[in-house]
Amino acid sequence: MTSLQLAEPAIAEDCCAPSGRPALEVEEAQRTALVFKALADPNRLRLLSIVKGAGDGEACVCDLTEPLDLSQPTVSHHLKILVDAGLLHREKRGTWAYYSLVPGAIEQAAGLLATL
Amino acid sequence: MTSLQLAEPAIAEDCCAPSGRPALEVEEAQRTALVFKALADPNRLRLLSIVKGAGDGEACVCDLTEPLDLSQPTVSHHLKILVDAGLLHREKRGTWAYYSLVPGAIEQAAGLLATL
Repeated sequence: MTSLQLAEPAIAEDCCAPSGRPALEVEEAQRTALVFKALADPNRLRLLSIVKGAGDGEACVCDLTEPLDLSQPTVSHHLKILVDAGLLHREKRGTWAYYSLVPGAIEQAAGLLATL
Repeated sequence: MTSLQLAEPAIAEDCCAPSGRPALEVEEAQRTALVFKALADPNRLRLLSIVKGAGDGEACVCDLTEPLDLSQPTVSHHLKILVDAGLLHREKRGTWAYYSLVPGAIEQAAGLLATL
């Protein structure tokens, strides 16, 4: 018994000290990744940029297709992803939908990086 | 000729003041989107989290598979994306590769959001 124990290999040589569990848990990582997925597209970044720069704090969907040279269905698809990610607020008024930044949302996305 | 001009429809009724061109140009949006694409995955966020939390500022690839319960090829794939995005630095020493955060890279990614 004793000899068997002695015959067992020593613990495999460590290459370095173990880092332990990740600070970011699975659910939190999944939520955070969703926000970055929304930001991981050049057209969506440009849409956010237009909405952010809109003089009155909101942009009409009718005003978002021309600058990006995209079809309205494509723009609407991207806008929906940004709304679902909590980055844009959508308000329908009459014929058009108007988009504004959710207050603090971009700063919050930046803050997510600090929590890694 | 004059009557034709008069017969032309007036400019279509504007729903709002145009927002103009996006502040973010195409190339900048593409570069920024690449960084967020690297961040848009829960496993990559958790890998960053481990590397950031590593006591000596770096983590061995041999130490990154167990906490995430992923195969080493999968982990290596994710690490390559993080390196390519400029978020992680990779150094091969002997058998193992060691990963550390590129100084300032996460802060820079957060700063990209401020430039939108």
